[in-house]
Amino acid sequence: MLDEVILLDAYFSMFGMRVRIALAEKGVEYEYREQNLLNKGQYLLDMNPIHKKIPVLIHNGKPICESLIIVEYIDEVWKNNPLLPSDPYQRAQARFWADFIDKKVNDTGKRIWYLKGEQQQAAKEEFINALQLLETELGDKPYFGGDKFGFVDLALIPFYCWFHAYETFGNFSTEEHCPKLIEWAERMAEELENKLRAFSLTEEEKNEISLVAGDIHRSMKECTRSLLGKICGNKRANFTGLRKTICFIWPTEGPFSIRGMGYNYYPVCVHPKDKNMVKDGKMDL
Amino acid sequence: MLDEVILLDAYFSMFGMRVRIALAEKGVEYEYREQNLLNKGQYLLDMNPIHKKIPVLIHNGKPICESLIIVEYIDEVWKNNPLLPSDPYQRAQARFWADFIDKKVNDTGKRIWYLKGEQQQAAKEEFINALQLLETELGDKPYFGGDKFGFVDLALIPFYCWFHAYETFGNFSTEEHCPKLIEWAERMAEELENKLRAFSLTEEEKNEISLVAGDIHRSMKECTRSLLGKICGNKRANFTGLRKTICFIWPTEGPFSIRGMGYNYYPVCVHPKDKNMVKDGKMDL
Repeated sequence: MLDEVILLDAYFSMFGMRVRIALAEKGVEYEYREQNLLNKGQYLLDMNPIHKKIPVLIHNGKPICESLIIVEYIDEVWKNNPLLPSDPYQRAQARFWADFIDKKVNDTGKRIWYLKGEQQQAAKEEFINALQLLETELGDKPYFGGDKFGFVDLALIPFYCWFHAYETFGNFSTEEHCPKLIEWAERMAEELENKLRAFSLTEEEKNEISLVAGDIHRSMKECTRSLLGKICGNKRANFTGLRKTICFIWPTEGPFSIRGMGYNYYPVCVHPKDKNMVKDGKMDL
Repeated sequence: MLDEVILLDAYFSMFGMRVRIALAEKGVEYEYREQNLLNKGQYLLDMNPIHKKIPVLIHNGKPICESLIIVEYIDEVWKNNPLLPSDPYQRAQARFWADFIDKKVNDTGKRIWYLKGEQQQAAKEEFINALQLLETELGDKPYFGGDKFGFVDLALIPFYCWFHAYETFGNFSTEEHCPKLIEWAERMAEELENKLRAFSLTEEEKNEISLVAGDIHRSMKECTRSLLGKICGNKRANFTGLRKTICFIWPTEGPFSIRGMGYNYYPVCVHPKDKNMVKDGKMDL
């Protein structure tokens, strides 16, 4: 039977990125369907009636939800390039750190750009503390799991896209506090980008992306659109509603799609609380 | 090699109960070490330096933390009586619902006895809603996974011990809203109790427990102590500090240790915020 694989996702989501990276690592072809999170479609609601969130992976009609659970599923179904180690203790450790990232990095990061004053300060301290614990866990290994890319690397690297936002709102430098973790992140970003590029981009497409770099707003969108198709690994990507959805510019997709494409981190960082930017209602994260 | 298995735990913890049930299902002998959470020991801090929480399973010197991760580890190491299904999709579903319980049942339940007024009301509604979703997922099956006890049953049943507390503080009846789920919970509690009793309790011990039922405070402690040793599955249980730690009476251990021992749900429910009861400082949950 030919597998039918559909991913309901939103391009800026670090949780979605995890799934995209896992599928890319496994070389699984799939249909990417960008979702409008400000006006959720019935199909998303049907596929994830409990949390009503992306990402959702639909494999031969059956939906799987929650990014780390999806990644474990992918790892169990497509056995090439395993993401989790085979040893039960090492597996437990990988799950522990991925869970730690969900509990400490995501929440505190969000609070840095979401809150102000003392609460923001507290979030910043927690965030730095969490990254320092991760840095200690990484130690001198090239990857969290040892000598190859794995579950924890995959769980953490998408957040790197958001570091610029956290740093801008929190007024701090992650690199000052965690130089080795940033070294790891830059290496991961480059490796993933090279893999994705080798996997998918033609010279013409690379030029096309460079050409639009002058018009920042446009280029951001075009880059994202072009690259998304590539990250998705096929040409069927459906971007209906993308322009309408992204009414603010996220500093995302940075490391593994924008970096090396003519400009480092996108320098504009718009707070989603800015009413002028969020036109269509409440944000849902 | 003979396995050395140690569990750092606190008797009233639903997270600890998950691990105890998993170990009982597998028939694994282990040393239970009750932890004083108001004054954490150095060994606990060394074994779980990141979260500093129970439960921690220490298998041949190596610590594993976070209850669901521990249960998956146990399921991978001791393969008899599998808790997770073997099919990847069913596994993903089981993980999804266990994760749902952690995200929705635990947090909202805690907020019911922790908060007051509107916030408590909101928590109560969320809690009932979460249980109704679980009831729908259970449907007419005897167990969440189908026809045998598994991962989701294990993840949820310990919370049943706390329902009396939630209901008392929130002034509602779970059974009114979720009759089928309560039916499931009572059946699970009975099954687990029977398994544990068959597994471990002598007639003499059962009588001993019944005898102390008159003196409620004492009986609560004695029951718990006696049964804990049994739930632990061995005689090496170390209860040092138990009396000191439990300076308030939790309505816990109910279903699978107190029920059927002479009294249903323990009728006294002391709010941990009551300063007269919490003598040794801040509670840590």
